[in-house]
Amino acid sequence: MPSSIPFRPESTPSSEDSMSTTSNTPDSSFGTRPQAVPVQKPSPMPFSRYRAYTPVDLPDRTWPSKRIDHAPRWLSTDLRDGNQALIDPMTPARKLKMFELLVSMGYKEIEVGFPSASQTDFDFVRQLIEEDRIPDDVTVSVLTQAREDLIERTAESLVGAKTATIHMYNATAPLFRRVVFRVDKAECLAIATHGTELVMKYAEEHLGDVEFGYQYSPEIFTGTEPEFAVDVCNAVMDVWQPSAGREIILNLPATVEMSTPNTYADLIEWFGRHVRNRDHVAISLHPHNDRGTAVAATELAMMAGADRVEGCLFGHGERTGNVDLVTLGMNLFSQGIDPKIDFSAIDEIRRTVEYCTNLPVHPRHPYAGDLVYTAFSGSHQDAIKKGLEDLDRQAAERGIGVAELEWEAPYLPIDPHDVGRTYEAVIRVNSQSGKGGVAYIMKSEHHLDLPRRLQIEFSRAVQNHTDAGGGEVTPDQLWDVFQREYLAPDEPLRLTSVQAASGSGRRDSVTATVVNDGVERTITGEGNGPVSAYVDAISSLGHHVRVLDYTEHALSAGGDALAAAYVECEIAPVEGLGDEDSEVVWGVGMDANIVTASLKAVSSAVNRARR
Amino acid sequence: MPSSIPFRPESTPSSEDSMSTTSNTPDSSFGTRPQAVPVQKPSPMPFSRYRAYTPVDLPDRTWPSKRIDHAPRWLSTDLRDGNQALIDPMTPARKLKMFELLVSMGYKEIEVGFPSASQTDFDFVRQLIEEDRIPDDVTVSVLTQAREDLIERTAESLVGAKTATIHMYNATAPLFRRVVFRVDKAECLAIATHGTELVMKYAEEHLGDVEFGYQYSPEIFTGTEPEFAVDVCNAVMDVWQPSAGREIILNLPATVEMSTPNTYADLIEWFGRHVRNRDHVAISLHPHNDRGTAVAATELAMMAGADRVEGCLFGHGERTGNVDLVTLGMNLFSQGIDPKIDFSAIDEIRRTVEYCTNLPVHPRHPYAGDLVYTAFSGSHQDAIKKGLEDLDRQAAERGIGVAELEWEAPYLPIDPHDVGRTYEAVIRVNSQSGKGGVAYIMKSEHHLDLPRRLQIEFSRAVQNHTDAGGGEVTPDQLWDVFQREYLAPDEPLRLTSVQAASGSGRRDSVTATVVNDGVERTITGEGNGPVSAYVDAISSLGHHVRVLDYTEHALSAGGDALAAAYVECEIAPVEGLGDEDSEVVWGVGMDANIVTASLKAVSSAVNRARR
Repeated sequence: MPSSIPFRPESTPSSEDSMSTTSNTPDSSFGTRPQAVPVQKPSPMPFSRYRAYTPVDLPDRTWPSKRIDHAPRWLSTDLRDGNQALIDPMTPARKLKMFELLVSMGYKEIEVGFPSASQTDFDFVRQLIEEDRIPDDVTVSVLTQAREDLIERTAESLVGAKTATIHMYNATAPLFRRVVFRVDKAECLAIATHGTELVMKYAEEHLGDVEFGYQYSPEIFTGTEPEFAVDVCNAVMDVWQPSAGREIILNLPATVEMSTPNTYADLIEWFGRHVRNRDHVAISLHPHNDRGTAVAATELAMMAGADRVEGCLFGHGERTGNVDLVTLGMNLFSQGIDPKIDFSAIDEIRRTVEYCTNLPVHPRHPYAGDLVYTAFSGSHQDAIKKGLEDLDRQAAERGIGVAELEWEAPYLPIDPHDVGRTYEAVIRVNSQSGKGGVAYIMKSEHHLDLPRRLQIEFSRAVQNHTDAGGGEVTPDQLWDVFQREYLAPDEPLRLTSVQAASGSGRRDSVTATVVNDGVERTITGEGNGPVSAYVDAISSLGHHVRVLDYTEHALSAGGDALAAAYVECEIAPVEGLGDEDSEVVWGVGMDANIVTASLKAVSSAVNRARR
Repeated sequence: MPSSIPFRPESTPSSEDSMSTTSNTPDSSFGTRPQAVPVQKPSPMPFSRYRAYTPVDLPDRTWPSKRIDHAPRWLSTDLRDGNQALIDPMTPARKLKMFELLVSMGYKEIEVGFPSASQTDFDFVRQLIEEDRIPDDVTVSVLTQAREDLIERTAESLVGAKTATIHMYNATAPLFRRVVFRVDKAECLAIATHGTELVMKYAEEHLGDVEFGYQYSPEIFTGTEPEFAVDVCNAVMDVWQPSAGREIILNLPATVEMSTPNTYADLIEWFGRHVRNRDHVAISLHPHNDRGTAVAATELAMMAGADRVEGCLFGHGERTGNVDLVTLGMNLFSQGIDPKIDFSAIDEIRRTVEYCTNLPVHPRHPYAGDLVYTAFSGSHQDAIKKGLEDLDRQAAERGIGVAELEWEAPYLPIDPHDVGRTYEAVIRVNSQSGKGGVAYIMKSEHHLDLPRRLQIEFSRAVQNHTDAGGGEVTPDQLWDVFQREYLAPDEPLRLTSVQAASGSGRRDSVTATVVNDGVERTITGEGNGPVSAYVDAISSLGHHVRVLDYTEHALSAGGDALAAAYVECEIAPVEGLGDEDSEVVWGVGMDANIVTASLKAVSSAVNRARR
């Protein structure tokens, strides 16, 4: 491929098929008037209040010709930077669930808190250590500021750990030196070196049995003069004395993302050239996403020589969040590189993170959002269909499964099955009406506000109906399909009556009369709400259900309003959920009583799974 | 700044403050055992199914040293690519609202549909033209495939427009040539050139009075051999004959994002060097976000010479969406560059897009999410406070307003006021308990599931309380604050009784008895629901309210359940909403009847605004 052709060559070969007969004076030879180039007008925005970021000068950069060929070392800071920026910080139970998720996915470096700043964080670190919850090959780390009392407390939090890292930071950026801490460069540097001495002192005092590591962050690195950042890091290393077998992690935070992602890569390459002891330094990235380019900044900075990446699952963290570890890992995967992290059950990862953070993952979030394996456009659907058929044909010819073929399909960058998802073609019901969506009609005509994933599931049922019947679907027909699909199924399980009891401080209990496989039974169960109590009750009948999502609303205003409840359930054929044979289905229930509606919804899911 | 220092210099000056006395044999001189470098294990992911993208070879690329210094030409495809990928496609009313939003923001090129593929799209284009809704300085464009019947229909849709562009595409990528269309290169190229001839033919036939322009897209550009993409574009230009005053837009879609964003920039720079007629070509970008780096890919490709960018507000579009025009524009703004688009009322933009698309903007979405001007960390809050105080001091010294100063504040990349937002410091109520959030306690102890923006608003009220009282806040105290803040205020407006009537096909009506400024009044109103009917009714009393958000839930399971309703209202002091003096506040109402609860919530908002 030619790589140094002069700019704007005079001509290249034209096609034989082209119609080259028209003249060069278009105004006289075309029947339309040529359009003027559209002109955008000045905006009223006060842009002159801002100045452009000044990048480091690195004309001989090498990173743009590099390619990423292996995963970096990952550190998850979901329990520190992520947790710190939640409206509802995680409870200890949620923290533990997050920690276990991270371990199960394969993260080997996990920042677990800021123990000197929060008793909760201190207690959580102690819990992990004292309950022996940290696998031998996982290193936990904790953050501290460079103050003696905080450093001692931080060291105390780690007593008894097998392997641990203290991560100390101080502000080195000029704005912080001037406005926040009122220190000059020498004082700022002394904070870093003295803090490092104190980390070593208290580690020696408290952590003699711990395999101990040290991480230092000049904060905000991207806002600090590059030469000064290197000076501080070199001075810190004069104290720590890294050598073979004794590394230091120098973490270079873009705590606020300040410019295009190439400028971060330039800065990382520049730093790698100028910092001392490069062989014993792990250069670590800590990008935030203020400009929406944190993933890109991380990738380009990996090309620029970084060894290690800090971030959060789905990009939680202060403001716009830290860089998203899921997207970074899956981007590697899609290029044939082992991410060293297991994303094969991405919905389960998403649900756990949504549970722990109480914040949603956006429907268009790469690799994990509700809509990212969905095609709406007819031409996309057609191309994907032909692509999948071609893969089937190739697999048949070679006598292997599609999963053994190299993946290549229109509009689908990865095989959704590789992360436990499926490709969905969402059809338009009434493409001629302009009020086309299934969801729209269900809402506007039938007052049902279907959850997004249920909309997609129901669209398939509607598609089966239209494929069979053909033509346009009326609102009444749509209701028939919905009724048949979700409301009518009453076998094997039908709820006939229910009594629910709840009180503050007590677990909810439910006593239900059901017809199960044609036999009337009275069952009881307990849980932290009526739905979980009912799930407990029906497990005695062999129905093994886990509720993944739940939502309920009134159908209309007024005292006699019906409520509609929607539950997404994982239904296992035998006890032991998460089994490969289990199925994720939605159930719907409607009733004047909101409790009864939700229990009917669970029954609906059970019956649909059994069909 | 040195720019060509050799890699890993032997040494740089060390700090005087550092403790350089320890030896180089750390194992003997430190009291902790050095940590082994953590090792990540292979994942079970089938990464070997994928192969890395092959970038174009461009070692002499120039874009990494370029900087963006002006806005590109923008095209919004919200009404085409964006609308095409919604679960609920926009109704004509929503389309019109989106079109008007785009025009009001300053977009001058707007792709309004795919008229040959959809009667709705055809009708919408006709409506815009026939109702004379397209401003003279706005160019609408429409998409078509390269088939004669579709091209003629497309031209017909534009009859009567002042200025319009036809945008034709055909698939040029080898996967599509082989699997989807079964054509060779020559046939593929002939589709493009013949289609261009047909566009010219039918434009001449139908659009003689239209200032007419042409856009061509080789689809999927990033999956097409670069030389072939240039060949096809050159052949298309042999037909169209671009010249001074007769441009062609060559749009280069990354319909699926395939690799790190630098590879798109390389490809765009390579294309710009090799395509003919460069002076009369607008090189246009159309990036999607499959790898989460569409904003970066666009920015780097702008540095690589692109003239024009296609995208959607907040990144809607198939799967992960198109590149987000809001983030791109605001990124320019934050660097002191006029985005040529008005983002000064970003919440209003967000609300309108959420209304039109029926999809949320994520709380961490750059510049617009609920949480992006929020600081949770105490050290962040402290730094921001000092930074804002410093700006105040500078402004006072110079006798000007803060808005006239160059913006520089810790952790806030822009002044939130520049987009109509405010900085929020969210405090932790019970930082010692581990169940710290206001929202968490309100949910777990009081069964109130506060909407996210209300949580933030209420946190301020709690902060005022704790600043006054000090110390930890108990769940009971929190309830007191909530009650005083939202439920108690009953002046000037108190609802005493209400009758609501609704029926299918009719507008809702409300007859309410209220005490207004101490005087009992019976008022009536109409609307498309009881809330809007009540808003209509109280406008007769001088309360001018617009409901921005609304949510309601039952407090607990059971037949006697209370409902809680939350409404976010814009309250204007006089009629004429959107006025600068209007205020956005939340109101809360609780009642056994869900209608009454929601009307009480509106009254609560009115009363809070009047305090």
